[in-house]
Amino acid sequence: MEKYSIVNYSAGKNWLTVAWKDGHASIFYYIYLRDNCPSPRNIHKNGQKITETAQLDTDIRPAHIELVQNDTINIIWEQDGHQSEFGAKWLRDHCLSKQEIEKREMKNRLFEPIELWDSTLGIGAPQADYQQIIEDDTSLTVWLEYVRRYGFAVLNNVPIHSGAVIEIARLFGYIRETNYGRVYNEKTVLHPNNLTYTSLALSPSTDNPYRDPVPTLHLAHCLQNQVQGGDTIVVDGFKVATMFRIEYPYLFELLSTVPVNFRFRDKDHWIERKATIIGLDAQKEVCSLRFNNRAIQPFEIENQLIPLFYKAYQTFARMLDDPAFQVKFKMLPGQLFITDNERILHGRTSFDSKEGKRHLQGTYADRDGLLSKLRMLKKKQMPD
Amino acid sequence: MEKYSIVNYSAGKNWLTVAWKDGHASIFYYIYLRDNCPSPRNIHKNGQKITETAQLDTDIRPAHIELVQNDTINIIWEQDGHQSEFGAKWLRDHCLSKQEIEKREMKNRLFEPIELWDSTLGIGAPQADYQQIIEDDTSLTVWLEYVRRYGFAVLNNVPIHSGAVIEIARLFGYIRETNYGRVYNEKTVLHPNNLTYTSLALSPSTDNPYRDPVPTLHLAHCLQNQVQGGDTIVVDGFKVATMFRIEYPYLFELLSTVPVNFRFRDKDHWIERKATIIGLDAQKEVCSLRFNNRAIQPFEIENQLIPLFYKAYQTFARMLDDPAFQVKFKMLPGQLFITDNERILHGRTSFDSKEGKRHLQGTYADRDGLLSKLRMLKKKQMPD
Repeated sequence: MEKYSIVNYSAGKNWLTVAWKDGHASIFYYIYLRDNCPSPRNIHKNGQKITETAQLDTDIRPAHIELVQNDTINIIWEQDGHQSEFGAKWLRDHCLSKQEIEKREMKNRLFEPIELWDSTLGIGAPQADYQQIIEDDTSLTVWLEYVRRYGFAVLNNVPIHSGAVIEIARLFGYIRETNYGRVYNEKTVLHPNNLTYTSLALSPSTDNPYRDPVPTLHLAHCLQNQVQGGDTIVVDGFKVATMFRIEYPYLFELLSTVPVNFRFRDKDHWIERKATIIGLDAQKEVCSLRFNNRAIQPFEIENQLIPLFYKAYQTFARMLDDPAFQVKFKMLPGQLFITDNERILHGRTSFDSKEGKRHLQGTYADRDGLLSKLRMLKKKQMPD
Repeated sequence: MEKYSIVNYSAGKNWLTVAWKDGHASIFYYIYLRDNCPSPRNIHKNGQKITETAQLDTDIRPAHIELVQNDTINIIWEQDGHQSEFGAKWLRDHCLSKQEIEKREMKNRLFEPIELWDSTLGIGAPQADYQQIIEDDTSLTVWLEYVRRYGFAVLNNVPIHSGAVIEIARLFGYIRETNYGRVYNEKTVLHPNNLTYTSLALSPSTDNPYRDPVPTLHLAHCLQNQVQGGDTIVVDGFKVATMFRIEYPYLFELLSTVPVNFRFRDKDHWIERKATIIGLDAQKEVCSLRFNNRAIQPFEIENQLIPLFYKAYQTFARMLDDPAFQVKFKMLPGQLFITDNERILHGRTSFDSKEGKRHLQGTYADRDGLLSKLRMLKKKQMPD
């Protein structure tokens, strides 16, 4: 580990400048230092912050500063008399120069950027074996890392019994219970309240776009499959959205700004949400997709926008349907697949229910639990 | 119910114009009509859409149109030979003129707009009685409507036993299980992994901003309260954000575009999320808040932005702390309060745990379940 040494400091009106032995200089605004003072009175030993930022004097400044052995800067604050002790490591780790922020981002990064994919990913890549991930943390880490990176992974040789899908979700997180129950059973029924429970083809979609919040992980486990068709299709919606944005920026603009309605109704439920098909974060990056042609409602937008909006919707939908973006595979009993439900669309081809039985059991969970588990596993495996 | 009568129609290149007896004219793009054809082959009787929009010919047009008894328009489509039957009511209900969209929005609206509030709301307003909402759907509707409208409601005389808070959540939805369990117990413990489990004051905050997705409803039920302090504080964050936006548009811009880090760590979990404090929807309206001074991490933003960002953060935080925006009350055993966790902040004053015991039991749930229940209740009570 690098050992940082402080050469000297100078105290300005609003900030402290720290000069380092390696030639770097850091500027710390006093308000930032006081706010983040690491003393036990300010940060609880559980890591939570006690300092009430709102109550700090915005113009807070030091009454006294002292550099001890090139290694620690002690400050007594004028306004509240509080004493802070900042170690060299803490200071360097909190330097907000562009260069140091970037260095830290690289150094502390537990996760590589996600990888967008198309049909060339194939089904071979993001797979693992049930017994291995149960017995071995390294295998579990690899599998969960697939989910994070590709938004999609397959697990083989899962015990074939009802409820096994819950056990898999509990390896990393918590079940998101919904009106479909803790698990739902994808098989053909006589009076389906959802087209999932038919033998119809299901074009690639994200699940439950009518929900708020949408479940962020979807798991499906094959218990029985005696039919020829019913193949599973997965598509990286972020990949498609990225291409769509490049090729059709104006259509992308429409799908990311004009909300549509998604709805699910049966005799006991009326779940509905108005939201854009493409969700952007504050930096205008794609962060969530809601696409489900079965749950979408007639567009309720002014007529003059209809032709262009259809162009946008159909163009995007046709890209999602393009085999060049799809991975297609047949779920065998004991196989399970998991998708990031705000990124990956999944669908199935139609089948003939006269050929036999097809039974998938599915459940929902959330990303935060999976990422927490993955951080803990990675941390355990990292050299300290 | 109004009875609409069609006088005549004219078929253009891309759209059908329908002239109504009341003088109104509707324009329907052919692609819209074909896409939303209500036949059982296109819309399943469960309400889900079978038509694959992606597969429709964008230039689809009628081969034959027929008006029957001023009440129905039948179309045979040129490209796929499909026959559609559009009743006058369906057509009028799908007219996309500005005027008709607005009329429909008013007519079909189950929900009034939400109401923003400040301290003048008082604790008296959004309250109900446990026994009444259990026995009577009208009372339940009123209480759930409080939650939707104010983002906050109190329930009195809830049975005082562990787990009762789950029973309340199950009246309208599903428990969002987290690393804290299906319920968490807010009482003072020796080694708290969260400051909630101390006797410290908690400044108003939304819960679990480090989660993705954040639980959208929070419920807390008082089982025991023998201390003087520990008063509950609630603040309408949307109200404060609205005032903040008007008074400090540039600071508002910062909090809605520059993401910050929220984190929770203990020996088994490392939950972290980077997100803006103020979340905006595609129309730039405030749709979610994440504010929690205990879970926030040192800002990792370039130094030159620090003074202004502190100004934004402190200004917003001080507004949230302003009693003019707060409702404060003492939770008595048997009382429960619920908040929309993306809108309402809650906090508590400090207390002296030597005075006695204070035990709240909390849980999380999601908005979609509550809104679904509310729609079903309202529909049942509406004259048809």
